[in-house]
Amino acid sequence: MTTEQRRILVIGIGAGDPDHLTLGAVKAIRRADVFFVVGKGQDKSALTDLRHRMLEEHAQAPYRVVEVRDPSRDRRPMDRSDYASAVQDWRTRRGDIFERLMREEMSAGETGAFLVWGDPSLYDSTLGILNDIEERGSVSATVEVIPGITSVSTLAARHRIPVNQVGRPLHITPARRLGDVGQNDDGDIVVMLDAHESFTQVEGDDVWIYWGAYLGTPDELLVAGPLGEVADRIRHLRAEARARHGWIMDTYLLRIAKSPDE
Amino acid sequence: MTTEQRRILVIGIGAGDPDHLTLGAVKAIRRADVFFVVGKGQDKSALTDLRHRMLEEHAQAPYRVVEVRDPSRDRRPMDRSDYASAVQDWRTRRGDIFERLMREEMSAGETGAFLVWGDPSLYDSTLGILNDIEERGSVSATVEVIPGITSVSTLAARHRIPVNQVGRPLHITPARRLGDVGQNDDGDIVVMLDAHESFTQVEGDDVWIYWGAYLGTPDELLVAGPLGEVADRIRHLRAEARARHGWIMDTYLLRIAKSPDE
Ligand SMILES: C[S@@+](CC[C@H](N)C(=O)[O-])C[C@H]1O[C@@H](n2cnc3c(N)ncnc32)[C@H](O)[C@@H]1O
Ligand SMILES: C[S@@+](CC[C@H](N)C(=O)[O-])C[C@H]1O[C@@H](n2cnc3c(N)ncnc32)[C@H](O)[C@@H]1O
Repeated sequence: MTTEQRRILVIGIGAGDPDHLTLGAVKAIRRADVFFVVGKGQDKSALTDLRHRMLEEHAQAPYRVVEVRDPSRDRRPMDRSDYASAVQDWRTRRGDIFERLMREEMSAGETGAFLVWGDPSLYDSTLGILNDIEERGSVSATVEVIPGITSVSTLAARHRIPVNQVGRPLHITPARRLGDVGQNDDGDIVVMLDAHESFTQVEGDDVWIYWGAYLGTPDELLVAGPLGEVADRIRHLRAEARARHGWIMDTYLLRIAKSPDE
Repeated sequence: MTTEQRRILVIGIGAGDPDHLTLGAVKAIRRADVFFVVGKGQDKSALTDLRHRMLEEHAQAPYRVVEVRDPSRDRRPMDRSDYASAVQDWRTRRGDIFERLMREEMSAGETGAFLVWGDPSLYDSTLGILNDIEERGSVSATVEVIPGITSVSTLAARHRIPVNQVGRPLHITPARRLGDVGQNDDGDIVVMLDAHESFTQVEGDDVWIYWGAYLGTPDELLVAGPLGEVADRIRHLRAEARARHGWIMDTYLLRIAKSPDE
């Protein structure tokens, strides 16, 4: 005899463009009985709107949508170990919420789905939290992951550039770790999660920036050029857009042309 | 009066699974008049087969397919500057071929498409070559890029893991540069283009490997575990699969758990 398992689908939905959805993601959306939509609060409701529009277009009725409010996170400036414990604390609270959803909002044999921005493997906590829940052992589920288009690929596509130079490494980093990364090699650097315009801290006449905000959406902004020449324009655009929308989501590639012979 | 432009679509098709195709890629495939399929020769024909199957399913008749043989590349072991010039030489010859395709196999006003494995921005030469052609100025075209699912996201999805640890950087590197990358920080490392089982050169009791070959295809192989414990199993599987298929395509994540308190 087998007990019917709960099944969780973690579905990457791409980075802002509804056409980023893969055929596999569409099929997965059709299989789900219940969708968990984790909201970031008022200011970023455009991000939840996209998810709702995708469900209206692709989900198979009857389906349920459960909206949850993300636990708030301590976002004051802090050092690395405080940062890690603030994230850990937030993640535990998010784990409690996910566990309750899996226990109370779906029954054994049902399929629940999380729609994850971009790709679930890149700077997203969903998989880590589901893993924590599995380790707690209080509710069991099989997990399936459907990969998505990342904001990194989207940035590169919109600028029509490769993210790496031939034969060289690529570094992807949260802005707070920009100082630690790629200073000793010739790799390119993609910066994410930048709340403080860290590109203004970067020195060097040979640095190019490829910047993008609200990528894949109708509000998309793109700037490319030598960092020294375009940094002010980016700061200006960024401040203006942030004031208009109430929030901003941007990412950029820093390319350091260290060997001019290539 | 405007002259009608040639239009080139560079379409990411994902890393092996036909369901990786995005809705945007399907729409782009429907818009193209002619597809350029660049073959790697006999041994990797499975890779071209997938492209043909995608066209049969999604392209809008009438459409044309032009198959081209990739120029062969010098793959003897060599140092970094020889490697760069071998790649450059190969790229120039590929550029000549692409230019001829754009000039002879499509007319002004038409739309041509390259179907690119994974995402066009990641370790792929198509965008660089199109850029070279634009700089030569001999044939002009507008280029549009449709992002795709990378083999990195696919590897992570199949192992159901994030590719980065919370708040830490991620490094992606060709195997030949593994020694230069991430030795001085706590980031994870994804290795691509490994012809020589470079993971066997990595030391450390605290290193985990998440390995995958033929990801997204029916031949997919996955192994995860402490590097010291599973390296032999991977070597064995790799040799066996390579002998059976005549070629192998694999990638892996190396995760170095440097601070056990997290
Ligand atoms: C929590 S991470 C999630 C990344 C996501 N999983 C992915 O694959 O892109 C959020 C960060 O991704 C970047 N990002 C995501 N979507 C973006 C978009 N549409 N435009 C610009 N940046 C974006 C920004 O750097 C943002 O701070
Ligand atoms: C020339 S690069 C192209 C990468 C591609 N543009 C992408 O986005 O994944 C080829 C390398 O990608 C990795 N790769 C691509 N597809 C793969 C697959 N299905 N399984 C395992 N590795 C793959 C391997 O490391 C291979 O050597």
